[in-house]
Amino acid sequence: MISARNQLKGKVKFVTLGTVMAEVVMDVGGTEVVAAITRHSSEAMDLKEGDQVTAIIKATEVIIQK
Amino acid sequence: MISARNQLKGKVKFVTLGTVMAEVVMDVGGTEVVAAITRHSSEAMDLKEGDQVTAIIKATEVIIQK
Amino acid sequence: MISARNQLKGKVKFVTLGTVMAEVVMDVGGTEVVAAITRHSSEAMDLKEGDQVTAIIKATEVIIQK
Amino acid sequence: MISARNQLKGKVKFVTLGTVMAEVVMDVGGTEVVAAITRHSSEAMDLKEGDQVTAIIKATEVIIQK
Amino acid sequence: MISARNQLKGKVKFVTLGTVMAEVVMDVGGTEVVAAITRHSSEAMDLKEGDQVTAIIKATEVIIQK
Amino acid sequence: MISARNQLKGKVKFVTLGTVMAEVVMDVGGTEVVAAITRHSSEAMDLKEGDQVTAIIKATEVIIQK
Repeated sequence: MISARNQLKGKVKFVTLGTVMAEVVMDVGGTEVVAAITRHSSEAMDLKEGDQVTAIIKATEVIIQK
Repeated sequence: MISARNQLKGKVKFVTLGTVMAEVVMDVGGTEVVAAITRHSSEAMDLKEGDQVTAIIKATEVIIQK
Repeated sequence: MISARNQLKGKVKFVTLGTVMAEVVMDVGGTEVVAAITRHSSEAMDLKEGDQVTAIIKATEVIIQK
Repeated sequence: MISARNQLKGKVKFVTLGTVMAEVVMDVGGTEVVAAITRHSSEAMDLKEGDQVTAIIKATEVIIQK
Repeated sequence: MISARNQLKGKVKFVTLGTVMAEVVMDVGGTEVVAAITRHSSEAMDLKEGDQVTAIIKATEVIIQK
Repeated sequence: MISARNQLKGKVKFVTLGTVMAEVVMDVGGTEVVAAITRHSSEAMDLKEGDQVTAIIKATEVIIQK
């Protein structure tokens, strides 16, 4: 179990690799969710289109707009 | 326009106020999304059950699990 | 209205584009403020020298040195 | 030397202590900057009104609005 | 597998509960590591002294001092 | 003194430079700790293999797994 409160299930749409960072675009229930992670992690996890993944976000990182 | 890539529309379910922080639980398309913001912001925005809000998250804050 | 407590008005000095990330250097009242955002956001917002912008930072991200 | 790119000099206006967290409101060149840190850090640093401080923010934590 | 690059194994030394937040102090190989998480997560995980835990930190959250 | 609660002493193992970002892999008591900072900071600090450094992490950025 992990303390991060937000865990959104989705599917990888595409991955863009830079030298240090990677951008992973996911589909979460019809909404796009984007993660900027290290290229190293993306390759270690072999992230690719169609993968079932979970986007994890700590509650302290969420901003609210009203 | 704002650079933060993740903008999830939802509705406030409930707000818990501490002395410094506030926890805001939202419903985002049937999934719970939780934000820990300052109590000051929660009060300044008058956040309460039923409010239509957007949860905003920078891409660099998103972790991926596979 | 947005819950993030820190909103600093400034002007873009220059933008450096990488494959995944972009570095945006701003002038905020004579002080340099730097943001690392995704290249995608920088291009979607067409950020360029001279743009009037606001740097937004959540209170939980601020460290204090004394 | 520290890698965090944003280092804003200011003065503490007031500190609010909760059980776990503390809110520190600073004046940075006429603009309010707010930090949510642990109460433990606030007490260990003896933060109080009038203290000369620096607000430190990593570039990856800065969002841009245009 | 999770994309966050830093995963430090440790043991809980003590937990302080506030209304919204909780402070969890861990021992990681003789060094103190502290997490500020929501009280809700701390209670849901039943965190208490002696628990074997892992502190997880995204690489983008790490600042370097030299 | 700095409010960030986690300060881990280590040694740089290697640095990878991208256009905007840099990845710095450190050895902290036998465990790898990785930071993604801006290339600009890495170069300004002249980070290189063997450097004695401190990895600094705010408590609000730490997630706990049990």
